[in-house]
Amino acid sequence: MSRKISAVAAAISLLASSQIYAAPKNIIYMIGDGMGPAYTTAYRYYKDDKTTKTVEPTVFDSILVGMAHTYPDDNTVVTDSAAGATALSTAIKSYNGAIAVDTKKKPLKTMLQMAKENGKTTALVATSQINHATPASFAAHNESRRNYDEIADDYVDVKVAGKLPVDLMLGGGTKYFIREDRNIVSEFKQAGYQYIDNLNKLNTIESIPAIGLFAEKGMPYAIDESPLRLTHMTKKALSLLNKDKNDKGFFVMIEGSQIDWCGHANDIACAMKEMEDFAQSIELAKAYVDNNPDTLLVITADHSTGGLTLGADGDYKWERDVVANVKNSVKTITKKLKDSKNIERDWVELTGLEYSEDIAKKLTEAKPNGDRAIFDVINGYINQASYTGWTTGGHTAIDVQVFAHGKGREHFIGSQNNTQIAEKLISFIE
Amino acid sequence: MSRKISAVAAAISLLASSQIYAAPKNIIYMIGDGMGPAYTTAYRYYKDDKTTKTVEPTVFDSILVGMAHTYPDDNTVVTDSAAGATALSTAIKSYNGAIAVDTKKKPLKTMLQMAKENGKTTALVATSQINHATPASFAAHNESRRNYDEIADDYVDVKVAGKLPVDLMLGGGTKYFIREDRNIVSEFKQAGYQYIDNLNKLNTIESIPAIGLFAEKGMPYAIDESPLRLTHMTKKALSLLNKDKNDKGFFVMIEGSQIDWCGHANDIACAMKEMEDFAQSIELAKAYVDNNPDTLLVITADHSTGGLTLGADGDYKWERDVVANVKNSVKTITKKLKDSKNIERDWVELTGLEYSEDIAKKLTEAKPNGDRAIFDVINGYINQASYTGWTTGGHTAIDVQVFAHGKGREHFIGSQNNTQIAEKLISFIE
Repeated sequence: MSRKISAVAAAISLLASSQIYAAPKNIIYMIGDGMGPAYTTAYRYYKDDKTTKTVEPTVFDSILVGMAHTYPDDNTVVTDSAAGATALSTAIKSYNGAIAVDTKKKPLKTMLQMAKENGKTTALVATSQINHATPASFAAHNESRRNYDEIADDYVDVKVAGKLPVDLMLGGGTKYFIREDRNIVSEFKQAGYQYIDNLNKLNTIESIPAIGLFAEKGMPYAIDESPLRLTHMTKKALSLLNKDKNDKGFFVMIEGSQIDWCGHANDIACAMKEMEDFAQSIELAKAYVDNNPDTLLVITADHSTGGLTLGADGDYKWERDVVANVKNSVKTITKKLKDSKNIERDWVELTGLEYSEDIAKKLTEAKPNGDRAIFDVINGYINQASYTGWTTGGHTAIDVQVFAHGKGREHFIGSQNNTQIAEKLISFIE
Repeated sequence: MSRKISAVAAAISLLASSQIYAAPKNIIYMIGDGMGPAYTTAYRYYKDDKTTKTVEPTVFDSILVGMAHTYPDDNTVVTDSAAGATALSTAIKSYNGAIAVDTKKKPLKTMLQMAKENGKTTALVATSQINHATPASFAAHNESRRNYDEIADDYVDVKVAGKLPVDLMLGGGTKYFIREDRNIVSEFKQAGYQYIDNLNKLNTIESIPAIGLFAEKGMPYAIDESPLRLTHMTKKALSLLNKDKNDKGFFVMIEGSQIDWCGHANDIACAMKEMEDFAQSIELAKAYVDNNPDTLLVITADHSTGGLTLGADGDYKWERDVVANVKNSVKTITKKLKDSKNIERDWVELTGLEYSEDIAKKLTEAKPNGDRAIFDVINGYINQASYTGWTTGGHTAIDVQVFAHGKGREHFIGSQNNTQIAEKLISFIE
């Protein structure tokens, strides 16, 4: 009987707040590149406080609402990041490699461009170069993700209602934006943008429009350098967007770009630190929504990378402590061990694993075969000791998760095509 | 404005049907053993009508509501089916191997036992032996899943309020229920149960109580013999439960047991045919709910098996046609090829793949090493040609999906512990 009463109360409260079906003013769209369901699961166990009996839920667990199908429009079933981001930004599936163009290579209007057209402030934040496949598919159009220079050009050339399309950009990419043949950063400055090139000077950005490019291409891995660089950029972006006080609101896309890169490398510790940076960025976005209820936060992935599995080779366990003890990306450990004067000490320090004659022998054998061979030895030991499995250096077709919080979250509950996520967001922007 | 009006209408309709928060009378609980998210994704592409541009959603897509964490209470992170089913049946996590006992090996009351205690009709349906880990954890208690005889004994010895706990059982297991030391089937008959041992005679069961055991241990793989045996058993079970007309309703657990077994074998075609049988069983359960709105259908998996990935070894594709063309389980293909008088013809017929000198050489080399070696050659070719990846012959820790339909489905939206699924169901039964 009390259940009936609470249902009546819930219905009355729904009546009282009947504007919940109206469009949210602000949209925070976050994409974990390569972040399939094995990554969010792994992150939960990786972060677990082992002194308690329960495995603590993560920020992902607090806002999970559904899953999405990622296949591209080329019969391969397995998408790349370009086709994935094109679907997520335009609601149209295309071929692998496509940057916001359809299968006939015709440009598709993106939700960021629609947002700008409708007077919203727009922003892109990524730890990759800001003209990499995912952010590119929101502001540029190209038949190939590889045409980095042309894509960077689009950020100033493809105007929306006579204006530059993106008001705030934070990420990497000086190589493409400050070139011999064209200095796009100068063009941004001429258009009134503040420019910075040092992550430590993030606080010096005073207002939108602004552009911050903090690396030649992608920023360093979280595990190697600034572990919370996406979190810092997200904090700054949300603060600037808030300060902007645009009556029409804002649209921002924030990408955890390098979850995918660690996945391609089959480097589990690297991936977990990227997850940590992405998770903390989500915490900030979630808090923003709580403080600004006219905001919708939607998070998904474009695909899963590496065929990551927790447990491998018949063993029923996953050793998260092994993962937590690794100090650098395997790429960096490779470099450091190559130059090491005390391999045993450095191995233990960097990998957290014991040293053995077997390891010494394998490293010695690998050395003449180059960095990749050394990398494979180190990575093999970490994956074996942690019982981490991988099936590919590429992507897989497994459905990805969908997370939502704030105004309109209920529209994302259940199973959906990646294009349907975009359709719903576009319906809020148009 | 029209959105506001429809919100008001929705709220009014919610008021009118305010009994939605009351407990459903009937519960259909379905468990896809080993059915991690890669399986439901694979099944969608496997079933896709390639003559249309869109990949058609499956029955799973129509009722997805969330995901669940599967870790057992022994710090391994990766659960087995016994600990998984114990969590799903009792709301208590235990150690791998536990059949409805806690970490101190103390029996835990299961939701099936609670249902019986509260006057509901109870049923178990599985394609494994009916005393295998998953169904066992609903009606028996044992410190080890391997004690099959003791577990079978429990089905008659562990009474609930003086009565046998399970009113209807359909599955395999004559080896354990008709033994030299004890004939449990006779005991069931004495207690008034109708008994059949032939799946073709399913229609001869007239009413509950009844028991049908259709194999010595597990039933044959769907791909090898009766492809829709779970669907047939589900249809019969729902028809008998409906005819039973118990005012207190019913509780039935239906397991797609062998998705897991094909996963352990890393046999993709085998797994897809098990998914087909499970999916068709779900269609029947879903239709039952639509016709009997006082029913809740909840579906999940205990864990994922095999570390299945769609795409492998760097290639961005998954060849579902290769999977669809395989005619038998690789176990059966191995037997048939071993006895074949025309290997080339039979290879093409059974695997759907072209024959080559390389295959002939590998099969010849494998022959002296026994069935397992031949199996590995055949399976390797199918997995390679279909770009299917696997990381283990065991289980992995990835979160599994949760599907719900009917009265009370809204309680299962989002991310949850597997024990929370059980807690919610128990709250409806108690």
